Formats: sequence, C-alpha cells, structure tokens
Amino acid sequence: MPVATFQVPLWVELLAAGLGGLQGALFAADTRHRRIDVLGVLVIGLIVALGGSLLRDVVLNQPPVVIWMNWYLVVAGAAALVGMILQPLITHAAWLITVLDAAVMGLFGAIGATKALSLGVGEVGALVVGVIGAIGGGMLRDTALGLPVSFLQVGTLYAVAAGSGVGVLVLLIELGVSVPIAAVGCIIVTATVRLLAIVFAWTFPEQRPATRTHPRTPKRS
Amino acid sequence: MPVATFQVPLWVELLAAGLGGLQGALFAADTRHRRIDVLGVLVIGLIVALGGSLLRDVVLNQPPVVIWMNWYLVVAGAAALVGMILQPLITHAAWLITVLDAAVMGLFGAIGATKALSLGVGEVGALVVGVIGAIGGGMLRDTALGLPVSFLQVGTLYAVAAGSGVGVLVLLIELGVSVPIAAVGCIIVTATVRLLAIVFAWTFPEQRPATRTHPRTPKRS
Amino acid sequence: MPVATFQVPLWVELLAAGLGGLQGALFAADTRHRRIDVLGVLVIGLIVALGGSLLRDVVLNQPPVVIWMNWYLVVAGAAALVGMILQPLITHAAWLITVLDAAVMGLFGAIGATKALSLGVGEVGALVVGVIGAIGGGMLRDTALGLPVSFLQVGTLYAVAAGSGVGVLVLLIELGVSVPIAAVGCIIVTATVRLLAIVFAWTFPEQRPATRTHPRTPKRS
Repeated sequence: MPVATFQVPLWVELLAAGLGGLQGALFAADTRHRRIDVLGVLVIGLIVALGGSLLRDVVLNQPPVVIWMNWYLVVAGAAALVGMILQPLITHAAWLITVLDAAVMGLFGAIGATKALSLGVGEVGALVVGVIGAIGGGMLRDTALGLPVSFLQVGTLYAVAAGSGVGVLVLLIELGVSVPIAAVGCIIVTATVRLLAIVFAWTFPEQRPATRTHPRTPKRS
Repeated sequence: MPVATFQVPLWVELLAAGLGGLQGALFAADTRHRRIDVLGVLVIGLIVALGGSLLRDVVLNQPPVVIWMNWYLVVAGAAALVGMILQPLITHAAWLITVLDAAVMGLFGAIGATKALSLGVGEVGALVVGVIGAIGGGMLRDTALGLPVSFLQVGTLYAVAAGSGVGVLVLLIELGVSVPIAAVGCIIVTATVRLLAIVFAWTFPEQRPATRTHPRTPKRS
Repeated sequence: MPVATFQVPLWVELLAAGLGGLQGALFAADTRHRRIDVLGVLVIGLIVALGGSLLRDVVLNQPPVVIWMNWYLVVAGAAALVGMILQPLITHAAWLITVLDAAVMGLFGAIGATKALSLGVGEVGALVVGVIGAIGGGMLRDTALGLPVSFLQVGTLYAVAAGSGVGVLVLLIELGVSVPIAAVGCIIVTATVRLLAIVFAWTFPEQRPATRTHPRTPKRS
C-alpha cells in the first residue's frame, strides 16, 4: 500500500542529524580502550548521525539524501565538533542526551518506514527499513570501532524500542490513520519503550544453549 | 551476454530462506562467548537467511526482493524462532542441517549469477555476485557478531565451494547450456565440494610469510 | 553543480586496481595473528583493489563498474596472486609500494568526487564520496579481517590525505578550473600529505576524555 512519505521540515531532520553527531562524538571520545584521534571522533560522529539514513536509502535503492545535500553533513560535522570540545561539560547532562536520542530514534524510524511504504515495500519490509533507519547509525559505529554490534547484546533494547514504535506506525497506517498522526505515535512509543527500558533496566531473556554448563563471564564495558 | 534469470518457484526460495533462518538461529544460540539475547538470535537468523540476497541486490543496484516482499522476512523469522526453541533437539541432527545448507548455498549462487548475467554483468562479475549471494549471509553474520569473517579463515571452504559451483554455471551458460540445467549443475558442484570438504577436512594451504620466524604478537602500525 | 566526471583511460584505472590487489595481498599475507589461507589472501587483495570503487558506486546508487566489467576483477585478482607469490621479494621494495599507493589513493579520490559532482551531488557530499573511493578498500579490508578500522586510529593519516586532496579538487572546480587539472591537483596534494605524514610520522592529537585517570590495556578476544 503506497502512502505519502512522512515529510518532516528540513530543520527537524537537521536537528536530528545534529543530535546524532553530538552523541556519536561523545561516545567515541569516551571509548577509552582504543586510541582514536580527533579526526576519528569526527568521523564517528558523522557515522552515528547519518549512517541510519544512508543504510536506509541503500537498502531502498534510492540516492542517499545525506550524500546528495550539503546540509546534513555540515550540521552533523559541526555538532560532532561541538560534542568533542564540550565533552567534559556535556557528560553531566547525559540524561538530556538520552531523552533526545530516544525521540530522534523514533523520528528516524517513522521517516524510514513511511519512505519504504511510499515506494511500495510490503509492511514487514517497511518495518525492517524503519528499524534500520533508527538504529543503523549505531550499527555502523560499532562495526567501524570493531566492537560487537550493541543491539545484539543483552541489556540494550534499542531494536525493541525502534521495532515497537515502527510496528505501531505500520499498524496505524494499515488501519487508515493519517501519516503524520501515525508518525507521532511511532515517536512516542519508541521513546517510551527506550526510556522505560533504561529506567527499569529491562532486559530480554538471554538465549541459553542446552550445552552450557557454567556461566561465562563475557565482558563489555 | 544477457541471459534469463534462473527463476525458481517462490516456495523454493522461501524454503531456502527458512533453512537459512533456522541455521542462523542455531549458530547464534550456540555462540557461547558472547551474551546474546533472544532478540539477537532472531536478528542473526534473519541476517543469515536474507543477507546474501540483500547484498546481491545492493551490488547489482536493484531493489532488494527480500525487503520488498513480506514473505521472505516472515518465513525466515518464523524459522529462526523455531530454531531457537528446538535448538536442543536439532543439534542432534546437525548433519541434516549441513546437507541442506550446502544445497541452499548452491541455489543462491545460481540465482545470484544468473540475475547478474541477465542484467548484462560480465562473466567474472557474475561469478563474484553469485558467490556474494551464496556466502553473503554468513559474512554479514560474522561482521555483526564481531567475529573474523569465517570464509577468510583456514579450514572453511565455503567460498571455494560456492565459487566452483558458480564457475561451472557460468561456463555452462557460455557453452550454450540452458539456464535451469546449468543451475542444477551449480547446486550439485557446490554441495559436493562443500560436503567433501567437511568429510575429508580439506583445507587450503595457509599463507606463510617468508619472514615469519617466531610467533609475533599482533602488530599494526 | 554538475561537472564532467574525471575520465581516466581504462589502463590507468586497471593499473590502480592492480596496485591495490598487490598491496592488499601483501597486507593479508603479512597479517600474522590470524590464520588466513591462500584464498583469503586473494579475496583481501580483491577487496582492497575494488572495495573503494564498489562502495562509491553503492553510495551513489549507480551500478558498480567493478562488477559490471570483467577487467577490473581479472587484473586485481592477477595482481593479488603475484603479490602472494612475490611477497618475500616485494617486501624489500616497500617504499615503492607506498609511493604508488599514495598516488593511487589520490586518483581514486578524484574519480569518486568528480563522479559524484557529475551526478548532481553537493560539494560536501562529493568530498565524502571522494574520500570513500580513496579509502573504502582499506575500510572493507579491516572490517573483513575483524581489525579495528585503521583510519580511525591515531597515527594513520589516510583520511586526512584523501580529504585534503579531494577538498582541493572540489575547491578548484568551484573556482572554474577544468576537471583534469583539478584532478591532477588532487593527486599531488593527496600523495604529498600521505608521504609527508609517513616521513615525519605526523599524527593528530589523540582525543583525551576528561574522565580518563589511568591507561587501560586494550583488550579484544
């Protein structure tokens, strides 16, 4: 069912890219177990900010907007620089970043899923594309840093939050709800699940292979 | 030389996707050195089942079928769930999974190479695309789990099996053999090489740098 | 601003692919801390030689030339085989490889950025695409080998060299300089920065998080 893409004003998308750049730079600056130079922090900021949109457009076989237009890269890069410089200050406002990040994740989920639906992708595919748009930046970041991809680890509910929100959006659109309202629903559900997961330290049950006899201590800091 | 894509009935492709999902979930559930939650096992199942097709279509600059149509994702996801639940039972039938996996690898190699040829890709490129279709899922799986890509390691002949089968297919098509027959040849050769490699523990010679005199601690400049 | 792609004669591109294959095979053959078989060395050679072009075309949503035409794969593969066989000899001519590599990096940067501009990509996006073309092969190589991506590490100025060269090219084209002259400028600047960085062991300042109190020993299993 083709639908209109959820169009957001450009400044909202750029705000989202800026927040991604900020957060990516903070993450990279804090990755103490690898020696990353200043340029690397900038690159990681760009990857976190724009990676989700890039992967989304590659999977949809569309020209990636973040490459085609100058603004995304400029804003995300500037935000990453700010994040790098202000890192000592910003770490005290970690909760603010977390709240904004949760909202932005829902926003990118909504943009991705509606873009997919508008191109004629099936509902299940649109769900996957929405989730890729929402969490793709973090995925590319972990791959670039040689870390195990964090959404696969116990204790992070990134993918669940994104999936719930995008699932609600696809369902609402199927029921005939207009795209902007469904998108707002997506953002609210995604952010709520994400923040509740953090507050209550929700986790999914860990897969336990039948042959496991003693707990191993895997470790990630 | 443009040729017809090797069209298989949809149920065969879905069976292949289901086998991939099953096997991916078993692999992930068994990866004891990382803490993977239940959702992660499902995601890995999807990646193994659909990653090869996705990479193939991205490299061919075509809209990925596994995203566009609901069925692939639904079947692969359901198979991954089954794999997760039945893991204790299925591990005793590992040889069955191995045989099916070998056949599926050949099938995806044939689909990828003929799709490439039908789009006008050269013979060598079609060979590469076929191999990507055959082993791409495992490649993405290893990257997502932060493991070294397994087809680069001594002792796995995945890429050789896929390459032999797809090579035979391209050669047969060049000789004027019809696509379905060449595809069957591809599946037989791939599965045979793969299974013989396992039975006889074939390996390729390891690359030995001339300068190696003592074990080095890894070093990168 | 659409411009003509920087067209180089096919033999120059194939020479570049061959150099990439040679160098990739040398790198892989020398990676002593992982067990890589002969086929793996060949595959890494292909990845280093063609990965940048492939990523560039994927990001630009164009059919990848290295897949479509036989010659790229054949030349890069043959060069990788030569590199594997001659490794003991070639290591003594490491400086030659380094110089050629620096020039090739600039060449791919120029091809990527002008191809992007010719498709209507913005200046900043063209800069990013040029850098991806120049360093994408090394990026894919590190990911495939499970190594941390080297351009993010302290002490390698790959991305800086590529970015300077491509930046000069984009600037010159904006100023109305013809594409071939701008491309030559790109190659010269890239190679110069890269070689000076090696000779003088230039590095960027390392990012130091405010909270760092003691050095951690890096740890990867």
